[in-house]
Order: sequence, then C-alpha cells, then structure tokens
Amino acid sequence: MRLGSFFLTFWLAPDFVQAASSVDWIWSAKYVVTMDAASRMFKNGAVAIRGERIVEVGPRAAIERKYKASRRLDRPESVLLPGLIDAHTHAPMALFRGLADDRRLQDWLENFIFPAEAKNVTPDFVRWGTLLACYEMLLHGTTTYADMYYFEETVAAATKQAGMRAVLGQTIIGFPAPDAKTPQEALLRAEKLLERYRGDPLIVPAVAPHAIYTTPDHVLKAARALANKYGAPMLIHLSETKRENDDALQKRRLTPTALLDSLGALTGRTLAAHAVWLEDSDLEILRSRATGLAHCPSSNAKLASGVARVPAILKAGIAMGLGTDGFAGSNNDANLFEEMDLAAKLQKVHLLDPEALPAKTVLEMATRTGARALGLENETGSLEAGKRADLIILSLQSSRAVPLYHLISQIVYSLKGGDVTDVMVNGQLVVQSQKVLTLDRAQIFAKAREYRDRIVRSLGLSPSPIE
Amino acid sequence: MRLGSFFLTFWLAPDFVQAASSVDWIWSAKYVVTMDAASRMFKNGAVAIRGERIVEVGPRAAIERKYKASRRLDRPESVLLPGLIDAHTHAPMALFRGLADDRRLQDWLENFIFPAEAKNVTPDFVRWGTLLACYEMLLHGTTTYADMYYFEETVAAATKQAGMRAVLGQTIIGFPAPDAKTPQEALLRAEKLLERYRGDPLIVPAVAPHAIYTTPDHVLKAARALANKYGAPMLIHLSETKRENDDALQKRRLTPTALLDSLGALTGRTLAAHAVWLEDSDLEILRSRATGLAHCPSSNAKLASGVARVPAILKAGIAMGLGTDGFAGSNNDANLFEEMDLAAKLQKVHLLDPEALPAKTVLEMATRTGARALGLENETGSLEAGKRADLIILSLQSSRAVPLYHLISQIVYSLKGGDVTDVMVNGQLVVQSQKVLTLDRAQIFAKAREYRDRIVRSLGLSPSPIE
Repeated sequence: MRLGSFFLTFWLAPDFVQAASSVDWIWSAKYVVTMDAASRMFKNGAVAIRGERIVEVGPRAAIERKYKASRRLDRPESVLLPGLIDAHTHAPMALFRGLADDRRLQDWLENFIFPAEAKNVTPDFVRWGTLLACYEMLLHGTTTYADMYYFEETVAAATKQAGMRAVLGQTIIGFPAPDAKTPQEALLRAEKLLERYRGDPLIVPAVAPHAIYTTPDHVLKAARALANKYGAPMLIHLSETKRENDDALQKRRLTPTALLDSLGALTGRTLAAHAVWLEDSDLEILRSRATGLAHCPSSNAKLASGVARVPAILKAGIAMGLGTDGFAGSNNDANLFEEMDLAAKLQKVHLLDPEALPAKTVLEMATRTGARALGLENETGSLEAGKRADLIILSLQSSRAVPLYHLISQIVYSLKGGDVTDVMVNGQLVVQSQKVLTLDRAQIFAKAREYRDRIVRSLGLSPSPIE
Repeated sequence: MRLGSFFLTFWLAPDFVQAASSVDWIWSAKYVVTMDAASRMFKNGAVAIRGERIVEVGPRAAIERKYKASRRLDRPESVLLPGLIDAHTHAPMALFRGLADDRRLQDWLENFIFPAEAKNVTPDFVRWGTLLACYEMLLHGTTTYADMYYFEETVAAATKQAGMRAVLGQTIIGFPAPDAKTPQEALLRAEKLLERYRGDPLIVPAVAPHAIYTTPDHVLKAARALANKYGAPMLIHLSETKRENDDALQKRRLTPTALLDSLGALTGRTLAAHAVWLEDSDLEILRSRATGLAHCPSSNAKLASGVARVPAILKAGIAMGLGTDGFAGSNNDANLFEEMDLAAKLQKVHLLDPEALPAKTVLEMATRTGARALGLENETGSLEAGKRADLIILSLQSSRAVPLYHLISQIVYSLKGGDVTDVMVNGQLVVQSQKVLTLDRAQIFAKAREYRDRIVRSLGLSPSPIE
C-alpha cells in the first residue's frame, strides 16, 4: 500500500520528473483568471495546451518547469481569461446592423426586418453575415456562441472557417421562411444539420423552434422529439415581451414556460433566450428541467422588452448566460464586454440595489455559467485541465487599466472588447495582436457593403447613410 | 445701392475671389456631422480653421477652393464630429478608479471614498488624477468637461496642460475638506480661481457648492452671490437620490429644486448634476431659471440612484447634457460613447418605449445640448463658423462601422470611444492617430500606480488586485 501510494504520487505530480513534458503552446500573462469553481486567479500565471485541450493552469514558474512548448505567447502586461460565451445570437443579421433603430417592435419587424429577410436571405447572405459576425465576435473576445437562424448549415460552415465554437440551431417556424416553405421542411433541414455535425469538435448542431407565438404546438413537440433523438439541444425564444406572456395567459391559461412544459418541450437540453417575464412558478419549472437561459440586456433595453429577473434566476440555480442578440436593431454589435457592464448596471438601477448583480457574477455569466447554459460546461467556460483550449488575452496597457485596484471589477466596468488582443479557440490561435488570422477582412467588408446596397434597394430606402 | 450690394456680395462670398484665403488647418473626412441647429451633415466634407476658431464648414470641394491651409488632416475613412462634452466629472478621482464597486452608497462613501480622500487628496494628487482623466477623456473624444472637486486651481492648470476646455468648479462644502477647513475658506479659494481664470480661452472658472444636504443655506447663498459677482456658473449636485428628495420634503417641505430656488440659488447660470428625482413643478422652475442639467446614466445605474426623466426634461426645453461622474465606483471610465448608448437604452427599457430617447437626441446631449447646459453654446458643441475649433475624428475602419445604414445610429449604438483617432481643441491638435500629444503617458501611468499603492496602504486594503 505504501509503495503503491508512492508511485501514484510520483506519476500524478510531474514536478518530480526531471524531463519536461512537451506541449503545443504555453500562454503566459501578468494575471490568469481561471473562472473555475474556486475562482482561482494567478499573478504571473500560465496555461499549457496540448492539441485541442488545456493540460494545466498555474503559476508561470511551475508551468515552465513542467512543460516544454513548441510555440508560446507571453503577454506580461495582460490578463488571460477563458474565451467569452455569447448565449444568444442571430449571426447572419450582422448584415442588417443598424438598419432600423429606435422603432416599435411591430414597425421594426413588419416594415423592415421581415421584408428585408424575405427579399435578401440566401445561403450567400448567411455566409457573409456569419463571417462578419464571427470576425467581430472574435475581436471582442467571444470564442463560443449560440445561434438561431435560417440556412444554419451555412452558419456552421462559416463558423468552422472562422475557427469558432458554436451551438447552432436551425430555425423552425410556423410560416414560410427563407429556407423552408413549411415547418416540416425546416425539420428536415434541422435533421440534416444534426446528422452532418454530430461529434464535430467545434459545432454542436441544434433544433431551434422560434417561439410559442410563431410555432404551433405540434411543431414544438416535433422539434423536441427531433432534438432528443440526437441528444441535441433545443434553442427557443421565451417570454421576451410582456405581450407574449399576456397572450399566452389569455389564450392558453398558461405562462409561456408552463405551456412549453405542458407540451413536453423542456424534456431535454434546452437553451431559452430572453426570459424577461418569468414568474416564480416558471423558475421552478426551468430549474427542475435544467433549462439554460440567455440574458440579453442590450436587446431587452433597446427594444423596450423589460428587465429580466437575473438575481432571482441565478439564485434559483438556473444557468443564465449573456447574449448579444441580433445586430439589426437589438444591439447593434457583438460585444460581451458591453453586455457585462450593462447587465450589472441595469439590475442595480432596476432593483435600486447596488449589490444586485456584482462584477464577479456577470463575468461568470459570460464564461462558466454561459457554458453551463449551453450544455458545454465540460468543454469550455473556464481555464481548467482537460477543457478545450478557448483563451483570450486582454491588454492592461490602456488608461482604462490604470490604476488597478480590483481586477474583476476592472474587466467588467472599465476594460472593453477593444482591449482583446489575442484569441485561441480549441487550441488554434485565431486572433493575434488584434488581427483575425482565419478570415479575410477586406473581402468580408466588401461583401457586407455590397449587401447593404442591395438591401437598401430592396426596401426602397434612401441610399445615403446621412439622410 | 446696387453698387453697394454688389461689393457686399463680392466680399462675403469668397467663392468669387480668385486668391484663396489662408487658414491654419483644413480637416476633411468622409462624413462631417455638424450638430448645428439644422443637423447638417456633409458627405466628403471639410472644416477650415484659423487660430482658435472654425472659419467654415461644408463640402470639401468648396472648402478647398476657398481656403489654403498651412496644415491639414485628411481622413477619407472617418467621420468628423464636434468634440464631445462631459457635463459632470470629478476628474482627480481617476486615481480611485474601481476602488470600491458594487457597494451601497453609505458603505462606499463612509468606508472608502471619504477616508481615501481625507488621507490622500493634495494638490499633487489632484494634478496627476486630472492628467490621467484628461488623457482618457481626450482619447475617447471628449474636448470639454465640467468638473467639481478640491484644489480646483490645480485641476485648471492640468487641464490647460492637456489642452482641454473645461468649466471648473471649486467645491464648497459644509464640513472640513482636503483643501479648506471651512466653507468660508473654500469660498475664498473659489474667488481666487474666478479671478485667476477670468477670460481664459480654455477655462471657465466656477463655484461648486456640493449639494443641499451637505452645504448650509447661508453657504449656498454666498456661493451664488460669489458666482454672480463674477458672472460665473454655479455647479451643484441636485436630486441625485430618492433619499435627498425625501429628506428635503420631510425637513424643509420643499423639493431640492424648490429649496434652491427659494434661497435664490438659481438666479444665474447654473449646471446641476443628476436631477434624477424631479417633479413636474421642478421642471417648471428649472426651465424658467434656464438651469442646465447633467444626466449621468452610468453613475445613476451603478449606484442605483434611479433613472432621470430625460424625455420630459428635454421636452420642457431644459438643456440636459451627459456626464460620466467620478471613476471611483460611479462609472468607472470617462467615455461618452458608453453614456450615449446607455442613456438611450435606459430610457427605452425604463419607459417600455423604444422611441423614448433616439440616437440623434443622445448625440445632441453629448454635443450641442451639453454646450448649452454649460453655458458654452456660443463657443462649442457644434461645427459652425465662428465657434471654437473643437473637433474629433472617428474611424469607420473597424467592423463596427460595417455595414453602415444610418450614420447617427452607428455612432451611438455601434462605434466606441476607442474608435476616436484625432482630436483638436481650441484650434490645437491634441490627439493624433490615438496618441495624446500634450501629455506624457508613461509618467502619468507611473504616478497613478504610485498613488494606487499609497491609497491601498492608507486604507489598510490588500495590495493585490486579485484578492
């Protein structure tokens, strides 16, 4: 027994082994914020990476002793963090960025978004919109996102080209859509996506019925059944507006959450976006079903949807991440630093309580809690041995980092998406010194401008951005 | 008469003069947003500058024909805007950035801010704090600010060193302060400031009684009398918290605004910060007194003070600008792009009305309306012939500018303070390609870090930012 213990210790503690173990990368920084369960942080820390995964995280000196790296990135004036997780997007809508702001939801949807989508959304549109969104997400430190749109197989291909991780849901909706004339056709598209990306290291394919008010009950049930057949997540919009809740209560005598539950639609992994108008009984349902949620503060504020009950939701043990939503009126950019800052401020002023949602909690929402909401808690969301190597470097060289009293506060309330310099996803370096290595910026911007002119013409709008 | 008219036309319309008029600068950009009363914008526009003032704004071709410039700045992939106006700051508190976040006001003030100020605020502290704040403001496109702090003559000297414009109020408060044992002593300091900076091209000296709940009535009256003696503005905090209002109503039977008015304290130019808890009767008083207001959305949200009635205030014809407030817990950075975005979103979600505060209105608050609130409407806040040359250039080269449907929306909801590349104040180029020409960055950052360590020791806090 004693001998066995000795050998076990020997093999588990490579400190005592003289030959250093070889790894593909060592990343080091002035501070390493792991966002692990113990909230460990290291001054002069480092991360060792082999292949797609993290091998070890710790003080730089210890990592250097144990590992020999083929490549390295040392940022002595920066913070190393897990990549951020955007829990709700419609990436291709990047091409509609700012198309129609400051408008009532019905005006916005009926006079701008629906006609713009009907006239313009094709696989090519989806491809270039997704590439633009991925370009911007990566530069702002987002490494994983959860998306709901049309032609989602094209979103998947573009996401893989960018080198990002994503949960990608093919939209199922109760009326003719750009990629499917009927919900049945959309379900077939979804199944193809589930088959095609099963087991992919970056893409988790999913089924995305739009919402209870756009998708009939039997389609919601079919979407759930399809997701469960493949062990895939279901993505949906839930209780975004008061009207959605009022209508459900009036017509169905159930809250949207209770309605979904009564249909059996929450019996499996689910990620529901917005969740603004939840009742206490809804919290109990969502907790018992282990449903993940996405809080979208910019979108909920800008579209005047309301303020989600984030502290109560988190207190109930429900995993709620942060989402940016679409660029077309709801946000208008893909920047989780802005969502963290806004999430914290919005709760404080809404509840008139400055302690309502502290910096550490919103950083958790953008990382480990977001990963849990997406069902990826074993893969990403923190810097821990065995997890996928999804890392970002945040510069401390701007005035925004000076002076520095509390690192987590500074990250949430003062540093910006623009302070991100380097990004790794799944062990691949994808952003270096603020340059996206996987994407052709000039080509993406040119295509986006072409689409802008085409969209403006299709809607009969003024071609000038200053009229 | 006909001859006279002819000559008049000849002299007033230099188009017809063959020899171009010489100017010091021409700045050109893809778009020029004037923020003048007619909201004029020019594609391929330019601004001609002579000495401290703008000579003409218009289409680039016309400006080039009429003026010959000694120096020029051409930014064909950018927007040219008037410099932004920060209507409420405590600049030296930059050295306390993030010292104590997510805390209740009393805990924050009594256990952190007041002891930190008592132990650390000296002219040297004020100097380096102001330089750090100016450095950050300039890089985020702020060219004018309104400040209330101690040792305000040191704030003035540092502001001039930075080359910024400011309305600077010496604080008067009813208890011993770092720079004055009594309000009487503070009033003497204020008078010295008023004398010293009378007629300065950059600095408007002012008197700043802190608030009704910290400054006795007779001191408020004396402060007003002193300001009026010099025709100077008075700056004050007003109705920031519900408690301030409740206390005034209970103890004085008057709202804070009505109380100030009853003391005659609004009989002259006044800039009041926050104005969160105004009643309709207050709006009428403030309108009739032509009092300017500063809306501080980040501060009011982060400290859970409440949401100001911005649409009602503007509708009443009151000039309300935007302010960042202090860095120490209320914000934590000096970035009016963030305040514009937040101001718009906060109103929409608070009033559940997506049209409550549109992009154009918040950009006006940060420019021409802010200038009016500060009493500087004839000097700055828009690009117009005869006004001071306070200009900023905002890059359109990031993904945040692509695609571009509506320029004003894009500026408010998508572009960031970090997109500012060049800044001119009062005809002087102060930021070029994101480098502040007037300030020594390395020295300011080093001093800020020294102060941080000293402040941490003075409060007995942990020296590590990760503990």
